[in-house]
Amino acid sequence: MALNIIDIAKLAGVSKSTVSRYLNNGYVSVEARDKIKKVLDETGFTPQRQAKGMRTKKTNLIGVIVPKISSETPSRVVEGITEILSPNGYDILIANTNLSIEKELEYLNIFKSNQVDGIIFMATKVMEKHIEVIKSLEVPIVVVAQDVKDCSSVYFNEFQATEDITNYLIKKGHKKIGYIGVYEEDKAVGLYRKQAYINTLKNNNIEINYDNIKIGNFEEKSGYILAKEIMEGTDVPTAIVAVTDNLALGAIEYLIENKYRVPEDIAVVGMGDSKTARVITPKLTTIHYHYKTAGRKSAEIMLSKLDNEKKESVVEKVKLDCLLVERNSV
Amino acid sequence: MALNIIDIAKLAGVSKSTVSRYLNNGYVSVEARDKIKKVLDETGFTPQRQAKGMRTKKTNLIGVIVPKISSETPSRVVEGITEILSPNGYDILIANTNLSIEKELEYLNIFKSNQVDGIIFMATKVMEKHIEVIKSLEVPIVVVAQDVKDCSSVYFNEFQATEDITNYLIKKGHKKIGYIGVYEEDKAVGLYRKQAYINTLKNNNIEINYDNIKIGNFEEKSGYILAKEIMEGTDVPTAIVAVTDNLALGAIEYLIENKYRVPEDIAVVGMGDSKTARVITPKLTTIHYHYKTAGRKSAEIMLSKLDNEKKESVVEKVKLDCLLVERNSV
Repeated sequence: MALNIIDIAKLAGVSKSTVSRYLNNGYVSVEARDKIKKVLDETGFTPQRQAKGMRTKKTNLIGVIVPKISSETPSRVVEGITEILSPNGYDILIANTNLSIEKELEYLNIFKSNQVDGIIFMATKVMEKHIEVIKSLEVPIVVVAQDVKDCSSVYFNEFQATEDITNYLIKKGHKKIGYIGVYEEDKAVGLYRKQAYINTLKNNNIEINYDNIKIGNFEEKSGYILAKEIMEGTDVPTAIVAVTDNLALGAIEYLIENKYRVPEDIAVVGMGDSKTARVITPKLTTIHYHYKTAGRKSAEIMLSKLDNEKKESVVEKVKLDCLLVERNSV
Repeated sequence: MALNIIDIAKLAGVSKSTVSRYLNNGYVSVEARDKIKKVLDETGFTPQRQAKGMRTKKTNLIGVIVPKISSETPSRVVEGITEILSPNGYDILIANTNLSIEKELEYLNIFKSNQVDGIIFMATKVMEKHIEVIKSLEVPIVVVAQDVKDCSSVYFNEFQATEDITNYLIKKGHKKIGYIGVYEEDKAVGLYRKQAYINTLKNNNIEINYDNIKIGNFEEKSGYILAKEIMEGTDVPTAIVAVTDNLALGAIEYLIENKYRVPEDIAVVGMGDSKTARVITPKLTTIHYHYKTAGRKSAEIMLSKLDNEKKESVVEKVKLDCLLVERNSV
């Protein structure tokens, strides 16, 4: 009989993660160290994993690269990642890129050379440069929020999400529906959501007015400016699809400032189901993305990669459907 | 004449941080590497800093430990830190402790052994254990949000902040003012704000009803529950001071659900000036904390510590005043 980490943790009255760190020569308090040593000495058993032979360089750290620490999405993903990795004895180091591609490449390389055991990369624009660096990595990587070729990825069904919210507006009687989006280099948010929006209108035989399709960046202000452009146009819509809640907030701010009633004069929907979406007036109709679940899934894939002694490069893809959340902005 | 990093960056047409990484053997793209090498070769100059002799272990990484990545405060602090460190050639690695003391100690030790050049520690409860680990560090540390003895710290004038918001309620005619706070182990938020609240009432000859002083944790739900306890008491106040915006939100949620009008039936103030505070109805009267500035200041102190070749342990303290923000919840 061989003890596993869970057994030792129970007997010593410490967490699984503490035992793991002890076995990997990581930081453990003197107190905990004594308790664990006592259990190992008394039982005389060698822990299973230990016995199998460890990678010598194991750090028990996973690097997590996020696009913008100040936005809610990454923090929900990180929450999910932590929930899975922490009880398995891994700590995480977070790198914030502020949506800069240069910083993303930099951090991929920092983690490559700073001995983390694996990298979870929450991606936005994925360029050829990223692929090159990713291919050169010696540790496993999982990408979140974009589907990257030849790379284990956890991402969302952007087509289903955007179809659902656009169809919802159409069912509510809207025929003129404007669109506030972001640059297409971000395939998930920029390209696929736009394609799905256009397809849904086409499938419903609604003529598309390209003047009411506006593209900006992720800032709330962008939603404000683009709503202004739409409302000052010649063919004002009765509803607007914004591809993020933040953009929807900016749009609503403009509309309310300019005496439009939401939703009576114009309906606005967002995507993402942020905390703010739930507390503004009117409460925002939006799409719930399972960000925390995506974080959990990415961590589970990472664990299976780390446990895979032969390091077979199995490419795993997880696509998550999204949920329409009806509130008061339509 | 010796070139400095800024000169080289200008001549090579790359960022200062790229040059710094080049000089410290960090990651630089092939393109940038060529440009920088060309400048150095052509000018024949040795960069100043380089010439002085570098620490051999320099990683150009600063570890930043935050209590809760999903809350707004740390992300504003990190924004300020990045604003200063990034153009000076430093990248940051963020560790999220989820308010766990064990995790804080763990990450202090991880950074200690994973070769960062310095640590910025956004603290909550500071216990004897923290002080021990901090004393054992071989790299400089700056603490944010708490004033830690013998340690460079950037923190807020909690007394001024709480006095201002309590006095504001008193000036508006309130004589029965309840209080929703947090545990006193968090000195800045738990202890000092409570002391300042009590002192302000005393200074205004207002009798203190200890039944209306409620202590919970940082969760929004805690604000909800404690507001319920206050409103179900025998001596219901006309105003409530909540020590964070999140607690105020929870309190307002309870009040509105139970048909109290805010502020007509009961006024509620928060502290922190979060994004949500600005968009809820009624907009929350609160105290603005200069979190971004605190991040900037901590980074500036860190830079001066890193530049200090003799490593003199100058203890620097920066205390920042806070700003009353009048909105519609009083």
